[in-house]
Amino acid sequence: MSDITTAGVPMKWVGPMRISGNVATTEAEVPLATYETPLWPSVGRGAKISMLTEKGIVATLVDERMTRSVLVEAEDAQTAYAAAQQLELRFEDLQKVVRTCSRFAELVKVRHEIAANLMFIRFEFTTGDASGHNMATLAADALLTHILQTIPGLSYSSISGNYCTDKKATAINGILGRGKNVVTELLVPREIVESRLHTTADKVAKLNVRKNLIGTLLAGGIRSANAHFANMLLGFYLATGQDAANIVEGSQGVTFAEDRDGDLYFSCTLPNLIVGTVGNGKGIDFVEENLIRLGCREEREPGENARRLAVLCAATVLCGELSLLAAQTNPGELMRAHVQFERKNSSTQAGV
Amino acid sequence: MSDITTAGVPMKWVGPMRISGNVATTEAEVPLATYETPLWPSVGRGAKISMLTEKGIVATLVDERMTRSVLVEAEDAQTAYAAAQQLELRFEDLQKVVRTCSRFAELVKVRHEIAANLMFIRFEFTTGDASGHNMATLAADALLTHILQTIPGLSYSSISGNYCTDKKATAINGILGRGKNVVTELLVPREIVESRLHTTADKVAKLNVRKNLIGTLLAGGIRSANAHFANMLLGFYLATGQDAANIVEGSQGVTFAEDRDGDLYFSCTLPNLIVGTVGNGKGIDFVEENLIRLGCREEREPGENARRLAVLCAATVLCGELSLLAAQTNPGELMRAHVQFERKNSSTQAGV
Amino acid sequence: MSDITTAGVPMKWVGPMRISGNVATTEAEVPLATYETPLWPSVGRGAKISMLTEKGIVATLVDERMTRSVLVEAEDAQTAYAAAQQLELRFEDLQKVVRTCSRFAELVKVRHEIAANLMFIRFEFTTGDASGHNMATLAADALLTHILQTIPGLSYSSISGNYCTDKKATAINGILGRGKNVVTELLVPREIVESRLHTTADKVAKLNVRKNLIGTLLAGGIRSANAHFANMLLGFYLATGQDAANIVEGSQGVTFAEDRDGDLYFSCTLPNLIVGTVGNGKGIDFVEENLIRLGCREEREPGENARRLAVLCAATVLCGELSLLAAQTNPGELMRAHVQFERKNSSTQAGV
Amino acid sequence: MSDITTAGVPMKWVGPMRISGNVATTEAEVPLATYETPLWPSVGRGAKISMLTEKGIVATLVDERMTRSVLVEAEDAQTAYAAAQQLELRFEDLQKVVRTCSRFAELVKVRHEIAANLMFIRFEFTTGDASGHNMATLAADALLTHILQTIPGLSYSSISGNYCTDKKATAINGILGRGKNVVTELLVPREIVESRLHTTADKVAKLNVRKNLIGTLLAGGIRSANAHFANMLLGFYLATGQDAANIVEGSQGVTFAEDRDGDLYFSCTLPNLIVGTVGNGKGIDFVEENLIRLGCREEREPGENARRLAVLCAATVLCGELSLLAAQTNPGELMRAHVQFERKNSSTQAGV
Repeated sequence: MSDITTAGVPMKWVGPMRISGNVATTEAEVPLATYETPLWPSVGRGAKISMLTEKGIVATLVDERMTRSVLVEAEDAQTAYAAAQQLELRFEDLQKVVRTCSRFAELVKVRHEIAANLMFIRFEFTTGDASGHNMATLAADALLTHILQTIPGLSYSSISGNYCTDKKATAINGILGRGKNVVTELLVPREIVESRLHTTADKVAKLNVRKNLIGTLLAGGIRSANAHFANMLLGFYLATGQDAANIVEGSQGVTFAEDRDGDLYFSCTLPNLIVGTVGNGKGIDFVEENLIRLGCREEREPGENARRLAVLCAATVLCGELSLLAAQTNPGELMRAHVQFERKNSSTQAGV
Repeated sequence: MSDITTAGVPMKWVGPMRISGNVATTEAEVPLATYETPLWPSVGRGAKISMLTEKGIVATLVDERMTRSVLVEAEDAQTAYAAAQQLELRFEDLQKVVRTCSRFAELVKVRHEIAANLMFIRFEFTTGDASGHNMATLAADALLTHILQTIPGLSYSSISGNYCTDKKATAINGILGRGKNVVTELLVPREIVESRLHTTADKVAKLNVRKNLIGTLLAGGIRSANAHFANMLLGFYLATGQDAANIVEGSQGVTFAEDRDGDLYFSCTLPNLIVGTVGNGKGIDFVEENLIRLGCREEREPGENARRLAVLCAATVLCGELSLLAAQTNPGELMRAHVQFERKNSSTQAGV
Repeated sequence: MSDITTAGVPMKWVGPMRISGNVATTEAEVPLATYETPLWPSVGRGAKISMLTEKGIVATLVDERMTRSVLVEAEDAQTAYAAAQQLELRFEDLQKVVRTCSRFAELVKVRHEIAANLMFIRFEFTTGDASGHNMATLAADALLTHILQTIPGLSYSSISGNYCTDKKATAINGILGRGKNVVTELLVPREIVESRLHTTADKVAKLNVRKNLIGTLLAGGIRSANAHFANMLLGFYLATGQDAANIVEGSQGVTFAEDRDGDLYFSCTLPNLIVGTVGNGKGIDFVEENLIRLGCREEREPGENARRLAVLCAATVLCGELSLLAAQTNPGELMRAHVQFERKNSSTQAGV
Repeated sequence: MSDITTAGVPMKWVGPMRISGNVATTEAEVPLATYETPLWPSVGRGAKISMLTEKGIVATLVDERMTRSVLVEAEDAQTAYAAAQQLELRFEDLQKVVRTCSRFAELVKVRHEIAANLMFIRFEFTTGDASGHNMATLAADALLTHILQTIPGLSYSSISGNYCTDKKATAINGILGRGKNVVTELLVPREIVESRLHTTADKVAKLNVRKNLIGTLLAGGIRSANAHFANMLLGFYLATGQDAANIVEGSQGVTFAEDRDGDLYFSCTLPNLIVGTVGNGKGIDFVEENLIRLGCREEREPGENARRLAVLCAATVLCGELSLLAAQTNPGELMRAHVQFERKNSSTQAGV
């Protein structure tokens, strides 16, 4: 279509950052595309700190799956309950249905919840190197058709019942899993906390409790104890061709900080990273180049490239989160840093 | 910085859509930048429907404000409580502090919440045509300094206490307001529901209750009763230079649908649209062009351009939401539409 | 202890109500202990309606389990992850540990969630006729000791990690299950809706969407789409010796209403009924008498008495919920009913 | 009605505890009615500790109000918005309406939220010594009638729109206020932490972060960072004639603990205590006696007795919370204490 142009979002490579853990041991730069350009030096500062430690950011992938929930209406709750029992019995049949419609999708779990005569069925898949939206929807479509044909007393209500949950703020994704669940940890020695972050482990730990845990809690937050995961996710997702609307659930994660005898233990848990190295958005030239430079276009087992991407993404989040929290322990620092950076670099100007 | 490039996100103008209401009466096309290109025909279908009705999408702006919460530590809860009372008494002083640091920011409300000896103070501003992040932070910084200097027994804890709340999934923004609150409504005559959406008002209303209301509720959702607000918001925000990480709170809104004697009353309430026509991201060429074409660069009273932008954004959300919900009432339609569109248009391919 | 007295909460038997479904087919009266005595005629009206229908309230038990989560600290996330995998492998060992400390508790599921270097382990048990708080805590204590002794790199953090979740408002209990999950349904013929409830199915369905679904959603509610489940639960729990603090999670459930050609389909889903017929509070004389009169002291398979109790409880909730919602469709009716009832019956007087 | 009996819930006076702050300076015992009798020594331990400190538990009342939300349907959102503006302009008229229907209720705030063409109007009252449910409902009924008569374009939808929110788990009550908001604080010297609680300030503070803050967060909790507020509230509410179903929102509060050079700063914030000294449940003999013994039947300014009651209640919660958290820092202690106490005192036996 000739009327398709592009929105050129400013992009910059930041780093390198040091990463280890159960997926990758590497030093890597990462690309961040964003209009909020003060993000670059902020993530850069965190990356620099990771380079000053031996292990760097330890990133542990603890789960991965993509989900889609369908919604069926049963004649009554008793019928729904009987159907739920059938789903459990026929799990292997359902797995076969999925295999017929995708080479990469594998059904790993079927869950359900019944309310009145409605049944929400949540299918959980592994999807290789794809984030898996389309694959999961296609498979769910086939599963739903199969279920309606083989289990009596049910009728179609929706191909998506919002129990997936895609791009909405809910608790279910964290509890049941959706996307890649990556825990990142960084131990920052006391002297680096002081010299590079101009703060102390105790101050960061206290701020994290007060702001990220208690502040979000009072705001009526749902599984969102962090300062600004969303910023780093947006920049990383745009730069790597991800569906950036998934920062909604991606933003729901937990920052944890502890003073360990003056050293700072800092951790970001990101249970819902929806990223892939194939699929929508991945054919674009700059995306390809970025994925190659990130080392996510190698010949590997299916899923390995995507896992590497997830780990790089999670480490990037930690870098930005650490930097901002440290800055906020000091009155005025955040504002000074912003103003300074924008004077130096930005062609744009907020209307202050 | 020479190492800054751009991430070229595919962008397309969609529409026109017809809009009326208390901000703008217009017919407008809108730009959407996204990797999820099936979004374009989906929004396009909704826009087309709006053109077939007399009033089109009626968009009512019911509130606007930008917020920043600071966090102070008091000697004890009694001291925090006394300070809270002082804040109320000195509201006009605080307004003056804000006026000294910005021409456009106006302090309209100060709220607080006390937990233990911590006090979260939430400042609420109007910010003219800016979305207001920076303006609010700058003003909050000045306010915080002023408060710490003039009210005894308090000490600095954080310039942001997550009680704002910025880019996290919480309940507070909807309840207290943050960003522009726009309600959109469209009455679709029965014959158009049938001929263009291939469904009925009753089916859409039922699906909305089951999926958007009950489905999200069971998923542990927080103020997020919709199918995919986040998709339209991302596309619109990127195309108009907004901080797209704000789709996190933007995605928290309510879709409502009713069968009115066969006609479909369809409404999307978007309480947290964080959009502006000046500020970060706005100096970029394509953004300028887009804002001009949207009619949001006119000589108007401060705030009017931003309000117009908010209304165009909200109407775009309704178009996409209506189209998807209608599609999901029909088994298989969503999948067929996706596959068809992607075959025709997309150079990318999901790895199904 | 001689200084133990009793708080005499007003109690009355209400009903009978007709019940069918997968647990019990019966007509039963139920005892309700409450200071809010207008609850009695309200539940009574719903019960009366159930008697006018053939099947009465159809109550389907769809799940049951009691949970306790322990919290362990791992050396790091990688160690936590390795431990989680061990838990899965050693499930049968864990089941044996439970069998050694209780005749009735059976471990049915172990789940976990990792955040930073913390691991929350959620044990799920069936507990026979007991609601199972103590049994689950005792078993969790044994399991925790066993885990710390046999899996390296973990240390004790808490016997309860709030991931159970007991008596707090969360999403996890509904999603993963805690207590008995009972769905109740009642189809009220149009003429009874009109003659007894003085309303229409359409009105009740609309009110349910607007108040219970949208109203609670806007209030930042979490899985709580109902009018007043808590009132009926409190009355029933107190009268049957239950730990009434569990109405906190019990109150989190969903009311659903549909107009089916003028008939009213009305359903209450109660995913978290924490009730038992043995255990704390059950030895008291009036409790014993109540349980006997409810038919919950029969010689039955373990768990059957408790399931019967859960179903009676759930049906009671439906009766009160239906009655109040119907009343609220009519302007002024609620207030008139309250005033009238209190004039007639109550020795107490609100200070209006 | 001759068929009214009583459910005799075991009740015991616990204490004394020492209390100071902006409402009462006193030493008081409190009555707790519960089937979970291990609660008594648990609260008793906390009370004892308060007696060993100079100020005891400092209880600061920071807010009080009772609320009721009505729900109206407007012709469209624009009409709703116009009505909302009228409500603001006519606030004094609305206050007059309230004064005509109650001597004690005073309208202090009217808020609203618009979704589609629905408007939820939240009335906030002070209600003297009553918790205020009935007073608020009666006043809301009069206000609603007045509004429908004087503002065009609105029609009745419900006397309660769940935006109040009564007895459901939501975020709104904490954010906007409902009931009495009491912050309690206790500074426990290091030696007492060790000798009486067998733990350290650091251990309690860490446990609080991990269990009450992070644990609840991961469970998808909503404003509920505590271990077991609900237990103490139930016991206190039943013993003093309160509507104990209000423990649902009462359970939503925050525990905060800090290690202050070895001393333990411990605080419970209870934003939603719905208690009164007049109204339903208060005419019963034992309730009267209890209120008198609590010093809540004195000749005081309207509201003073209820405020005293709220403060006693909040202090009781702190005692029980402190005791349990301290116990949970030690492996096995909780179980041993339970078993020991139940062997000694309870006639009942859990079926372990």
